[in-house]
Amino acid sequence: MPYRLLKGEPLELVKRLLEGDSRAAARLISMVEERNPSAPAALASIYPHTGRAHVVGITGPPGVGKSTLLRALSRTLLDKGMKVGIIAVDPSSPFGGGALLGDRIRMQDLSTEKGVFLRSMGTRGTPGGLSASTGAAVDILDAMGMDMVLVETAGAGQSEVDVAGIAHTCVVITMPRSGDDIQAMKAGLMEVGDIFVVNKADLPGAEEALRLLEGALRLDPRGRDRVPPVIRTAAFTGEGVDLLREEILEHRRYLEERGLWEERFRRRLLQQVMNLVMEEAGARLREILEGGRRCAHVLERLLESRETDPYTAAREIAADLLRDND
Amino acid sequence: MPYRLLKGEPLELVKRLLEGDSRAAARLISMVEERNPSAPAALASIYPHTGRAHVVGITGPPGVGKSTLLRALSRTLLDKGMKVGIIAVDPSSPFGGGALLGDRIRMQDLSTEKGVFLRSMGTRGTPGGLSASTGAAVDILDAMGMDMVLVETAGAGQSEVDVAGIAHTCVVITMPRSGDDIQAMKAGLMEVGDIFVVNKADLPGAEEALRLLEGALRLDPRGRDRVPPVIRTAAFTGEGVDLLREEILEHRRYLEERGLWEERFRRRLLQQVMNLVMEEAGARLREILEGGRRCAHVLERLLESRETDPYTAAREIAADLLRDND
Repeated sequence: MPYRLLKGEPLELVKRLLEGDSRAAARLISMVEERNPSAPAALASIYPHTGRAHVVGITGPPGVGKSTLLRALSRTLLDKGMKVGIIAVDPSSPFGGGALLGDRIRMQDLSTEKGVFLRSMGTRGTPGGLSASTGAAVDILDAMGMDMVLVETAGAGQSEVDVAGIAHTCVVITMPRSGDDIQAMKAGLMEVGDIFVVNKADLPGAEEALRLLEGALRLDPRGRDRVPPVIRTAAFTGEGVDLLREEILEHRRYLEERGLWEERFRRRLLQQVMNLVMEEAGARLREILEGGRRCAHVLERLLESRETDPYTAAREIAADLLRDND
Repeated sequence: MPYRLLKGEPLELVKRLLEGDSRAAARLISMVEERNPSAPAALASIYPHTGRAHVVGITGPPGVGKSTLLRALSRTLLDKGMKVGIIAVDPSSPFGGGALLGDRIRMQDLSTEKGVFLRSMGTRGTPGGLSASTGAAVDILDAMGMDMVLVETAGAGQSEVDVAGIAHTCVVITMPRSGDDIQAMKAGLMEVGDIFVVNKADLPGAEEALRLLEGALRLDPRGRDRVPPVIRTAAFTGEGVDLLREEILEHRRYLEERGLWEERFRRRLLQQVMNLVMEEAGARLREILEGGRRCAHVLERLLESRETDPYTAAREIAADLLRDND
């Protein structure tokens, strides 16, 4: 059964979104974040208008200068006449709560320009920080007509690796530091990168970091059909930013020529459906557990009679809640 | 149906654990982290031996000096003849991957002392970082005979607030900084604290931070029957550390006298059962979604015919997977 037809404000918002209205986009993303009951129906109705934007994940450890680089990259995309959406995920990201005020103000500058839409999203304690809400925001900016949607993730958790699941192209940003940086790179990050960047390339050690990365990527192809390029950038001087833009656009062409574009979109869809199911199932489980008599009964058995233990009880509840019909 | 009786190595480990063997504790925690199939049965069998340890959550933003304070606190507890278990949760915590080498080495020093058990645990991308594994590790150290189990959490996510759900006493650590610190404190952190600490009290602004915190706590009792104490500490000089220890022990007496000790234990059990169910349900949902024909079929409908959308599809799958019988 599809969601019921949209009426009233949500219908109006979707109409305006499809005409490229950024205030409608902002309102729809807020509805998703607030879990407004009309949000799923609105998202369902825009789905047919998605699949055109190039979704690019931008990831890397904190402190490598992602925010400055993202700003520089956005500007060169704008200069080429592209419309750019930016979603910054992570409470500690430069766009989110942990932002340096100056950074935020500079980003706001960018966001008032025509052709760019910037939104920071909280993580709400979802696993790894990349929730179904992030995917929904990508859909909204895609349907709005953005040519490229940049999803920035950072910090602890799985989000750095998860971003690959919702992106066509994944850019991993590092900076010159000690020689053991590649070892320190979070497990999985080497595998998900389509393009690698050594930012702050004006610092000493940039050349070495570049060579180490290139070497590691060549040594460990791990089923790749393409060795990812490694680019030097210095966001403050602008070095390498145009090249980064070209490599991102080149990666799209590469995906399209090989028929991999559809495959990445399929992967993104699967990821989004899984995130949505997990979110919905999680919410309903919590409801049942918190509200139901089941837990009162279990607690009684755990506490009064010590007849069972939390591990056995949890297994029973889970088995009872889930159908096993696949 | 209870878990089958333990035999072999797990049985041996549980026996040794109950005799206070720290190597058995370490091995059992590893089994939990590795999701060893024997782990649930081992945990079930130690459950009757839990409920004695005073579980204390230690939380607060990064950089406030939790690790140094925790070390000083542990040492004064050891001096009083208490056995102390420490579980440090969070990849970016000073015990985990993000540790400064010096910090880790100093902590290792402590961990070789008799009467202390130190373990850092990853978060594995669980929501907020406080997983069922954390609760299981608390159970293990409790059954091992630790008088107090300190659970340290930090960083992004919900873990700061969640720690209250598994602790009898929750200590929130801050430090003197700008006047808007209390506003910046993560939503919920003010509510969960049983004891507040202004660490690094040798820095300027300590007195003001103290007064602000005390004022905020008095103004906003939010259903408390007790105004939490606010303590000045300077872990490096030792200032306030004995007082912190006494306030923690005092809070236990307070809970016991009011009959709240059992209530907190009950809350911890409920939280643990919920975490376990969510973990098990999540794992099984993922299995079904990743392995099943269901997803292939859904993807086909999403991609080939555009007959449905991810939001409708996810709702159907979730409804299908969950029984609604409560």
